[in-house]
Amino acid sequence: MPERFHVSTIAIIGVGLIGGSLALALKREKRVDQVIGVGRSRANLERALHLGVIDQIADDPAHAVAQAEITILATPVNTIAGLFETILPAIKGDKVITDVGSVKLGICEAAVALGDQRCRFVPGHPIAGKENSGVDSATAELFADHNVVLTPQADTDADALELTRQMWIASGAKVLMLDATVHDRVLAMTSHLPHVLAYAMVDVFAHSTDLADCYAMAAGGFYDFSRTASSDPEMWRDICMMNRTQLMQHIDQFSDDLARIRRMIDESDGAALEDLFRAAKEARSLVAERRKPV
Amino acid sequence: MPERFHVSTIAIIGVGLIGGSLALALKREKRVDQVIGVGRSRANLERALHLGVIDQIADDPAHAVAQAEITILATPVNTIAGLFETILPAIKGDKVITDVGSVKLGICEAAVALGDQRCRFVPGHPIAGKENSGVDSATAELFADHNVVLTPQADTDADALELTRQMWIASGAKVLMLDATVHDRVLAMTSHLPHVLAYAMVDVFAHSTDLADCYAMAAGGFYDFSRTASSDPEMWRDICMMNRTQLMQHIDQFSDDLARIRRMIDESDGAALEDLFRAAKEARSLVAERRKPV
Repeated sequence: MPERFHVSTIAIIGVGLIGGSLALALKREKRVDQVIGVGRSRANLERALHLGVIDQIADDPAHAVAQAEITILATPVNTIAGLFETILPAIKGDKVITDVGSVKLGICEAAVALGDQRCRFVPGHPIAGKENSGVDSATAELFADHNVVLTPQADTDADALELTRQMWIASGAKVLMLDATVHDRVLAMTSHLPHVLAYAMVDVFAHSTDLADCYAMAAGGFYDFSRTASSDPEMWRDICMMNRTQLMQHIDQFSDDLARIRRMIDESDGAALEDLFRAAKEARSLVAERRKPV
Repeated sequence: MPERFHVSTIAIIGVGLIGGSLALALKREKRVDQVIGVGRSRANLERALHLGVIDQIADDPAHAVAQAEITILATPVNTIAGLFETILPAIKGDKVITDVGSVKLGICEAAVALGDQRCRFVPGHPIAGKENSGVDSATAELFADHNVVLTPQADTDADALELTRQMWIASGAKVLMLDATVHDRVLAMTSHLPHVLAYAMVDVFAHSTDLADCYAMAAGGFYDFSRTASSDPEMWRDICMMNRTQLMQHIDQFSDDLARIRRMIDESDGAALEDLFRAAKEARSLVAERRKPV
């Protein structure tokens, strides 16, 4: 076991909601002396500096990696793989690289670009977020009691893994380890499919014959159910693209299930419908029980 | 315009969450002197009496109707039509009959059993509920700022309609008028489809390959999205059966839309996916804006 987590310098590539919140959490807990921020938008980095999220701006990712003990790749999920080649020359000694991408298999596979330094990369995914993104929404509490999944590969260095684990624990999170494929399949079920269904449902709603009346009636269930359709369209486009294989399988399973329910309704098979509803209610009650207060 | 709503006696056939809450609201506002309760379960009626929801128990519906100026049919949605024949002999003079069924067209059509007294029946649907049903969950605040839809027919008596409208306003609700078919189509979109999708999603979830990991990850989006799957299975079986025509059309529209999204993912058409997500997010933001605090 390492001592209480503390590092001198971390680098955040992509200072938005997730990267910014991690910086704030580690700074609040005094687990880091200095945070270097890197990003495409100078204005955003200046803003992060002004907010005290970062202490220094670096112009290129390799320069930041060279100074930091841990680098967190926190750019949009489809751009993370593209960073490996850029930062590779700066990965020396016991430096640790980790990421926060919502889809893991593609990123793990792309990490082959790191060659021998691949063992220094610890793939990660904090399961936390808000409807609003951007560094202005970052808070030190974002990860408190939330899950962070790490998906180490066969050759991931044990010390790099442990340091990353300690970093997330220091931010308030609970850390789980999963195989990258299992992660992508589980997240397709618990997060990606629900987002697609919410978007599809609101899309059907928005094309209703009786739109004004629909808006008037869209309280309660519809409001809750459609909340996920308020998520960032670009981010969800990227997640859907990156996890397409798993997501399409889950869409197919869902479509089959919905067709089965439609058949029960069509054939007036009330008993089968009630059985299915009852089993779902029981499964949902287990989700509610296991959910930690957030 | 009638004077401030006040009646001497109302009868509630089916004293559960909805009927009980209406009784409590009208009693709190001193808009009724006496509430008579009728139901299949003597124990439930005794409980309602004990809770002060009703003041008197009647053994048969016709007897209660004979004593009341307004009778509210608040039994499960598939049993309301069956009450018409039983209560018909007691409908005399300016008595008003209304109901709270979640699906309206079938009930409106069944009201033909009332013959000449059909004009005394005002079809209604309060859009309010809770995850827990039963008279113990009844509260005087249930309808505050919630919509109640009335679906009067061509021959509905104007005074009966107005008295029913005033009764719901007295309970704290906002009253809207809709054509019964439009009501069923709108509710299929805003309530019945979301329930079916939530049940189907949780059903797929409950059959996941990685069930333990799925439970561990089912926070946030999945938790909100699946809330409606905690609703009463029997009640939702009945609603699905009664609104089957409209509901199946909405399931078909949704299935087509989901297939279209799947195709975008399969064909890596990120631009189309982002457009759809963005339009849905905008429509959802209008739902959020128009929603009254509850």
